[in-house]
Amino acid sequence: MNWPTSVTIKEVGPRDGLQNEKVFISTEDKIAWINQLSGSGLKNIEITSFVNPKWIPALSDAVAVAAGITRVPGVTYTALVPNRQGLERALEANIDTVAVFMSASETHNRKNINKSIEDTFPILKKVVEEAQSAGKSSRGYVSTVFGCPYEGIVDIEKVISVSETLFEMGIGELSLGDTIGVANPKQVQEVLEALLKRFPANKFALHFHDTHGIALANILVSLDMGITIFDASLGGLGGCPYAPGASGNVATEDFLYMLNSMGINTGVNQEKLLSASRFIQDKVGRPLPSHSLQVCSLTG
Amino acid sequence: MNWPTSVTIKEVGPRDGLQNEKVFISTEDKIAWINQLSGSGLKNIEITSFVNPKWIPALSDAVAVAAGITRVPGVTYTALVPNRQGLERALEANIDTVAVFMSASETHNRKNINKSIEDTFPILKKVVEEAQSAGKSSRGYVSTVFGCPYEGIVDIEKVISVSETLFEMGIGELSLGDTIGVANPKQVQEVLEALLKRFPANKFALHFHDTHGIALANILVSLDMGITIFDASLGGLGGCPYAPGASGNVATEDFLYMLNSMGINTGVNQEKLLSASRFIQDKVGRPLPSHSLQVCSLTG
Repeated sequence: MNWPTSVTIKEVGPRDGLQNEKVFISTEDKIAWINQLSGSGLKNIEITSFVNPKWIPALSDAVAVAAGITRVPGVTYTALVPNRQGLERALEANIDTVAVFMSASETHNRKNINKSIEDTFPILKKVVEEAQSAGKSSRGYVSTVFGCPYEGIVDIEKVISVSETLFEMGIGELSLGDTIGVANPKQVQEVLEALLKRFPANKFALHFHDTHGIALANILVSLDMGITIFDASLGGLGGCPYAPGASGNVATEDFLYMLNSMGINTGVNQEKLLSASRFIQDKVGRPLPSHSLQVCSLTG
Repeated sequence: MNWPTSVTIKEVGPRDGLQNEKVFISTEDKIAWINQLSGSGLKNIEITSFVNPKWIPALSDAVAVAAGITRVPGVTYTALVPNRQGLERALEANIDTVAVFMSASETHNRKNINKSIEDTFPILKKVVEEAQSAGKSSRGYVSTVFGCPYEGIVDIEKVISVSETLFEMGIGELSLGDTIGVANPKQVQEVLEALLKRFPANKFALHFHDTHGIALANILVSLDMGITIFDASLGGLGGCPYAPGASGNVATEDFLYMLNSMGINTGVNQEKLLSASRFIQDKVGRPLPSHSLQVCSLTG
């Protein structure tokens, strides 16, 4: 197997991790946590969502969070943006990268954003174009790439076609989501083989949920296929409200442990990251799925 | 990456999984559980340990367990045997395969079995020879192959040398243990590359603990290297009394989920296995680390 020498970790905990938490994390705590994350060496942090607060009350303080954090030079602050109204707020909040989202499967797309895939494209296009005019970069999430809770396995051709349309809009990077955590290493290899015939590897990030504990195995195959950008969520926080049974993202600290032990560079300080993980675990008030958080101290 | 078409899962939960549990699982419950395991299609089950009960009180009922279970034709029942006294009891209990054990690192070997590596060999040799005379097969565990809690990284040459001596004794199969769960995929690839230059792949099983959540990624590399036998423990039960911080084995049901989703045959029924996992979780009385056990039911 082939490993890269360095990997980019995109921390999505403050958005994907917190969005379904029943406990509302105070704005002050969110700000403190995000500052800990940027202090750990993470260069990409998705800090909040400008989806209507009615739908995601856990992140209703998006503007205050974006205004309150210390902006560290060299760190890219991303936020989820569903439409032009959301973009307006995101631009006021001076977000660096605008993340739009849709699904590769029709049913999940309809349940999640109440529109067909075809009707979603023009909305995202507007957001991406206006973000670009405002000098902001964009990123696209494609959900249910490896399986849909309503439709099962998703046709690779569908993923290719959605990716193509999104790239044509000018989206810089696509994050391929295993939204419900059902991907397996063989499938990851097959899907990436098909996509990488059409698009360069550096245009993709992989976004695995760890429902069955296979996220790191899936990441390993992705690394072998040339992918070097991965989303992760501190503590393994996260889930999906429209994907029953989905559990959290791969835990950033477990992923970092694996990369460090393999000699792959990330620029992230493990101790600072673990400290930030303990902070948010304390605020959320339950043991998080992260393995590294639960390890007793080792002798020697 | 290359995947095999079938894999053998060796269930070590009743021994490695239970040996450190603080709750004593009643003999009746152990028997019921082992019968559920053999009913799930698992063909190899390590049912107990004939180590002095003073050291492992959780398995002090070894003889009663071995006598009480229903022997399913085609299933191999293994037990851990430290020495000739243990072997005597194991033979009386009509165990199919005798598993001996030692460490690749000197300090762990001394802490675990109170002898140097050199002094351990003749003891194991006696056990293996007498087991063979009694018509029993043998299996060897080599602990701390990928790291020792006292010595850190273990020299590959040491692992090769211990393996060589154990094979020369006539041991049929060696299980290479990541006792404290510190192996990483790059290291697994390197260690296996070195070993497989000397010995055929089918002489090895891999035995990963999931301290950092990387066990399945390590298994994935092992599969790619030609290994097809793996130890696992239902629910992710387990640990090591002489390896501080070590957590349980890779959870059998998560491993099975990965293999099933990749189309790799095991002959094990997932529903029956999950039911056996819920049974032992209930008896142990705490949520086990297994991901599959904690997944809510998925729609569609």
